[in-house]
Amino acid sequence: MEKKRKIINDPVFGFINIPNDFIYKIIQHPFLQRLNRIRQLGLAPFVYPGAQHTRFHHSIGAMFLMDEALKTLKEKGHDISKEETDAALVAILLHDIGHGPFSHVLEHALVTNVHHETISLLLMEQMNREWQGRLQMAIDIFTDTYSKRFLHRLVSGQLDVDRLDYLRRDSFFTGVVEGNIGSARIIKMLDVKEDKLVVESKGIYSIENFLMSRRLMYWQVYLHKTAVAAEKMMINTLRRAKELSMMGEKLFASPALSYFLSQESTRADFENNGEALRHFVNLDDNDIWSALKVWTSHSDTVLSVLSDGMVNRKLFKIDIREEKVDEEKVAARIAAYTKRFNITAREAAYFLSSDILTTDMYNEEDDSIDIVYKSGEVKDISKASDMLNIELLSKKVQKYYFTYLRD
Amino acid sequence: MEKKRKIINDPVFGFINIPNDFIYKIIQHPFLQRLNRIRQLGLAPFVYPGAQHTRFHHSIGAMFLMDEALKTLKEKGHDISKEETDAALVAILLHDIGHGPFSHVLEHALVTNVHHETISLLLMEQMNREWQGRLQMAIDIFTDTYSKRFLHRLVSGQLDVDRLDYLRRDSFFTGVVEGNIGSARIIKMLDVKEDKLVVESKGIYSIENFLMSRRLMYWQVYLHKTAVAAEKMMINTLRRAKELSMMGEKLFASPALSYFLSQESTRADFENNGEALRHFVNLDDNDIWSALKVWTSHSDTVLSVLSDGMVNRKLFKIDIREEKVDEEKVAARIAAYTKRFNITAREAAYFLSSDILTTDMYNEEDDSIDIVYKSGEVKDISKASDMLNIELLSKKVQKYYFTYLRD
Amino acid sequence: MEKKRKIINDPVFGFINIPNDFIYKIIQHPFLQRLNRIRQLGLAPFVYPGAQHTRFHHSIGAMFLMDEALKTLKEKGHDISKEETDAALVAILLHDIGHGPFSHVLEHALVTNVHHETISLLLMEQMNREWQGRLQMAIDIFTDTYSKRFLHRLVSGQLDVDRLDYLRRDSFFTGVVEGNIGSARIIKMLDVKEDKLVVESKGIYSIENFLMSRRLMYWQVYLHKTAVAAEKMMINTLRRAKELSMMGEKLFASPALSYFLSQESTRADFENNGEALRHFVNLDDNDIWSALKVWTSHSDTVLSVLSDGMVNRKLFKIDIREEKVDEEKVAARIAAYTKRFNITAREAAYFLSSDILTTDMYNEEDDSIDIVYKSGEVKDISKASDMLNIELLSKKVQKYYFTYLRD
Amino acid sequence: MEKKRKIINDPVFGFINIPNDFIYKIIQHPFLQRLNRIRQLGLAPFVYPGAQHTRFHHSIGAMFLMDEALKTLKEKGHDISKEETDAALVAILLHDIGHGPFSHVLEHALVTNVHHETISLLLMEQMNREWQGRLQMAIDIFTDTYSKRFLHRLVSGQLDVDRLDYLRRDSFFTGVVEGNIGSARIIKMLDVKEDKLVVESKGIYSIENFLMSRRLMYWQVYLHKTAVAAEKMMINTLRRAKELSMMGEKLFASPALSYFLSQESTRADFENNGEALRHFVNLDDNDIWSALKVWTSHSDTVLSVLSDGMVNRKLFKIDIREEKVDEEKVAARIAAYTKRFNITAREAAYFLSSDILTTDMYNEEDDSIDIVYKSGEVKDISKASDMLNIELLSKKVQKYYFTYLRD
Repeated sequence: MEKKRKIINDPVFGFINIPNDFIYKIIQHPFLQRLNRIRQLGLAPFVYPGAQHTRFHHSIGAMFLMDEALKTLKEKGHDISKEETDAALVAILLHDIGHGPFSHVLEHALVTNVHHETISLLLMEQMNREWQGRLQMAIDIFTDTYSKRFLHRLVSGQLDVDRLDYLRRDSFFTGVVEGNIGSARIIKMLDVKEDKLVVESKGIYSIENFLMSRRLMYWQVYLHKTAVAAEKMMINTLRRAKELSMMGEKLFASPALSYFLSQESTRADFENNGEALRHFVNLDDNDIWSALKVWTSHSDTVLSVLSDGMVNRKLFKIDIREEKVDEEKVAARIAAYTKRFNITAREAAYFLSSDILTTDMYNEEDDSIDIVYKSGEVKDISKASDMLNIELLSKKVQKYYFTYLRD
Repeated sequence: MEKKRKIINDPVFGFINIPNDFIYKIIQHPFLQRLNRIRQLGLAPFVYPGAQHTRFHHSIGAMFLMDEALKTLKEKGHDISKEETDAALVAILLHDIGHGPFSHVLEHALVTNVHHETISLLLMEQMNREWQGRLQMAIDIFTDTYSKRFLHRLVSGQLDVDRLDYLRRDSFFTGVVEGNIGSARIIKMLDVKEDKLVVESKGIYSIENFLMSRRLMYWQVYLHKTAVAAEKMMINTLRRAKELSMMGEKLFASPALSYFLSQESTRADFENNGEALRHFVNLDDNDIWSALKVWTSHSDTVLSVLSDGMVNRKLFKIDIREEKVDEEKVAARIAAYTKRFNITAREAAYFLSSDILTTDMYNEEDDSIDIVYKSGEVKDISKASDMLNIELLSKKVQKYYFTYLRD
Repeated sequence: MEKKRKIINDPVFGFINIPNDFIYKIIQHPFLQRLNRIRQLGLAPFVYPGAQHTRFHHSIGAMFLMDEALKTLKEKGHDISKEETDAALVAILLHDIGHGPFSHVLEHALVTNVHHETISLLLMEQMNREWQGRLQMAIDIFTDTYSKRFLHRLVSGQLDVDRLDYLRRDSFFTGVVEGNIGSARIIKMLDVKEDKLVVESKGIYSIENFLMSRRLMYWQVYLHKTAVAAEKMMINTLRRAKELSMMGEKLFASPALSYFLSQESTRADFENNGEALRHFVNLDDNDIWSALKVWTSHSDTVLSVLSDGMVNRKLFKIDIREEKVDEEKVAARIAAYTKRFNITAREAAYFLSSDILTTDMYNEEDDSIDIVYKSGEVKDISKASDMLNIELLSKKVQKYYFTYLRD
Repeated sequence: MEKKRKIINDPVFGFINIPNDFIYKIIQHPFLQRLNRIRQLGLAPFVYPGAQHTRFHHSIGAMFLMDEALKTLKEKGHDISKEETDAALVAILLHDIGHGPFSHVLEHALVTNVHHETISLLLMEQMNREWQGRLQMAIDIFTDTYSKRFLHRLVSGQLDVDRLDYLRRDSFFTGVVEGNIGSARIIKMLDVKEDKLVVESKGIYSIENFLMSRRLMYWQVYLHKTAVAAEKMMINTLRRAKELSMMGEKLFASPALSYFLSQESTRADFENNGEALRHFVNLDDNDIWSALKVWTSHSDTVLSVLSDGMVNRKLFKIDIREEKVDEEKVAARIAAYTKRFNITAREAAYFLSSDILTTDMYNEEDDSIDIVYKSGEVKDISKASDMLNIELLSKKVQKYYFTYLRD
């Protein structure tokens, strides 16, 4: 990516043009460059070694699709100004800047009180200050306070360009080829009706396919049992590290990681470019892996065993069932670990994890996919499709996992 | 494809090895070589210009997948002999040899009394005679009279390698990328239980995806409205030509086409390498197109207008609706055509067609996809999936089309 | 391809937009639709079963690349009007309409006196009359009489969009993946300097790669020994058929094929929409295959043996050597054939063919690839590249083939 | 990658089977798992954001190609035992384990006295001790002391599976599609003659193409100017950090990085699982990025400016020329930096770098690609090809770069 050419070579979409200098500057901003150091799929490379792509790369891809979607809507006669185009592009470029390393891990272990979308917004506001308000419209689109609400839907909705990019990209880099969605076809079918994003009726099979591919990607990739086991092990590792840190133990860690290990940070700590925010923007995948490697030889058994597991791929074993794990099995495991490592039951509990896995992928009230017919009639996909119905689509799938240190 | 190398370069699967000399000879047989002159998707190139691939190419691809599937099953401990392997490869190689040009067109216009599977079998038997019975086991597998019935299921069943190849191949050559099924993953998940083909339970999402991709391909490709319009126009063209021929009119046609235009052939005419069969193996796409071009200047208005439409892409217009077309609309069209072309109402009826389009893609009783769990339990996919249910899967989708000559 | 959407689904380039109604009408013209019935690679499917793509499909792809190239040049500040854009698109769409079935075969057997480019021009002029002169600028670009000569170079030159499309497309459909050229990258690097098409100096490696991929495609595909053998066999078949026809023998053939079999047509016969031209536009692959099948049972041994070879893939054997074939070997073969088939030596000569295969791929004087440096200096690629030199690039490669009926 | 399935999903080659438990254990070894944390292309993601693939992934791909190559050779009648197969697979799996993060950077800044191949060997020997000598044959193949020398050539030679994998993989992940080599075709053409790896003569064009694609990849990716600038900047950053460390300054760094920053390690320090080796296996990309981020706020101007440049993509500017940079220009830049940052000329020298870039890609004496003709004759590709000649192939390409901190 050279400044002059402003073209990025993307194995997924081919050449991506950076539309103008303003967008280029946004891309060069440290907050976005940081996403170059955060993998999109966190720990999925344990299962899919090709899945090393970054949140930066995803953001660029989503920008490309936003550009394509806006071109389609303009061709269909919708009025979208140059300024709105830029704002929508900026909104999608920045939509993920609040993500930390190993997103869910972080939110369950290190930054438990502040959601990544909140952080994204705080970072956008910080950038807006630096640019004297030039990002305001992008922020309004992001927060759904801009008048043309369909622009928000392109950033965040059932058919947003975020999803269209990540499903396609994750399918590409994992090699799960059948997860490939027809992003180009779906975008060609987009339209706007009464300020809502709609899909032309002949696109109905593409939408069905999109929903099923998403489902496949969920179970084949995002909730793959080995990836879930790795994530739960990582959460327990960081929780133990945090517990030790908060008790005053000095662990090897970068200053940014150290900050979040040694205290519970709150939303207030992040606001107004606060200390938490300043540390947050220095935190990425590298801090975690660097620390884990050092912790493998720490004197605390729990920390060193877990860290060694993460670093050297001795991951938790995992069972995924329709029923909750039997309490006796949990107790037996804990007893075994206390004996094996000569630790307390409370410590041994770090060697296992059990809870519910859930997908809740479609909710008609909140957020529908609207199909528009030639007659002008609009129906939700769950009613338009003769294959999918709302009952099935909106059914929460719940499974129970029980994951634990191998013998 | 050179004899010595016995490797075929396939853009879909890469290099395909021809396993041995016997299989190579089967491939070289005129009955199989003829499939090089029959397009897999008939008239779909009117919509998808890349979809020129042939039934021969599909047969080679299906042979490759059969080989892969048998390897997987052998690795899982199932006993499949060298002879059975060859027989299964031959069965799949030959499964389509009874297809004529523009399959459905032919069966609705030229060879109306004999089904293509019957002709396939008659041709296999003819080859079996030439090879002194060496194809008998292949024929037994094809006709489901061989003891290991799972081999038949690989040739013909809900998850046969025929479908696995054509869905993947048709997706590739049409460019409908989201129709891509995970053929490699599905094959890795195949197993045999009590002589039935089953799929390991972790493959359930791949199966769901397969079923939905198939659905997409149906509506996006196989039943694409323009392709349907072209097919109905072609049927009417050939019916008119046959009507004229049977009345003694001499139409330009190859001897093979001439034979089928000038009489109703019956199963008896095909049996024992009968005259119909000997003409049939000389019939392919080329005969039809060659004739259509000449017929564009025939003195019969109906024939020349229809032929010109086929050759120069002035296809029927088509409406696809939930309801049957109004009889008055049909009558009005016929009246208009009689006037415009100065023909009878009976003749004018060749300029339109209306009927039901139906997909009936899953039928639990006849033919299920069985999922096997680690516990050994087997469930039909319609019960195993929490997304698809049998009601929806087995629901016939019916639409009405009305297609007619453009003004 | 539906009129309203004006989008074509291409497995090579994705969705291709048809820019406007005028271009759409050109595409719908019978002269262009005819290319739907002519395979781009003639007999290559004998080697690469996927290579069934048509000249029509190639023309659409080349139009897409022309559109991309013109966009790039406009972005770099070159003035190209709407009218010039349309004319360039039409010129490339029509550049191949003079091709007959199995291009070289035809020119060596049936239409020996008139070159396909001449026929293309005559057909364009015919279309121009139909459109009251609206195609004049396209014709001027095609014939290199239009003032902006770089537009001609995009249609016909070392780096024209014709080559950029066919190399990429032939690589895709044959599955010879390493023949893939970086068409998108090359187009991004195009510029115009003093009315000549030039390539930015940083594109030099892409050009080297393009030249070598072309070379690979020549020897791996276009001059593949089996494809050459098939072509020579086809030429001899048609020559025999023509010889018999001119002697008054009535062979089965469509009227168009009959016309060219029964006489030597000259340029004069084609001019002014003459009889030869009117027959020519009805001639395509189908006529040849239809006839060949019937000729397999013709009483003339030469014709029937050759036709059977073509139809049932009993192709000539071929040797390709550095030296000319030994005259004695030829004589011995002829003697053997006369004996085997009880025919004259003159007839037996139809069962073999020998001559030079030559590639003459780069000629600096006629037609160079110019590289432009940041300093403004322009150098021919053969001087700019430190790998390729003019001596090697312009060296004619000559090989001798000897091909003959198998025993 | 689950233990039981032993199948890895690779977006480049599809499903890769892990042949057996022994190979699986090798893959699970910490020395190989560490390669999961080292990117194959170091700093190339600054130019190609998709190029995040790891040395681990490459090693798995190379193992797959080794398996394919051995299968081909066995099919051609060469005797390769089960034990030799395993040894060759292990040799290629382990060939890169001595690589540190940002390979060349490391060797120019941190571990300047010991070559990565030496370290690979020391690590293999360490593993061999752990496995009681079971890796000895693999080591012999790696060091070219095993009797069947062609096995070494598959690990390390002009056409080794290392190159075949990385060129293909790097082309895939960068999106430089035209760098795609025909790895499958080349492997099918491999043979062994007099214990040397040779290529069948019909593969000559594939080899030409391979050499030119490699050349393209060199200039378009490996020596891309922005990637070179980033590399030189990284070298200077680490050199400065090392200089400060060796003067006693305490820099933030992981213990492993600290070790190499604070001393010059020698081969002796690595031998016999010495301290250097034990630290080395804990060093990866994460240590470097973690440290750089902290160093951006270090009080040493040189270190902080350089680190900030690396972290926030304010990379050196770079000129690549045919001639050496003018000494005056260098002096002027240094003068400007001393003034701008108030530092000494010696310190300012860290803000620029100039030297020769060289590719020396083919050397007939050391290491040839041998083409075998049907006659049995063997020729080096530089003599067999009528396009490439030895003069050009073996010509060193030299360019001078001058890279420096932007204003």
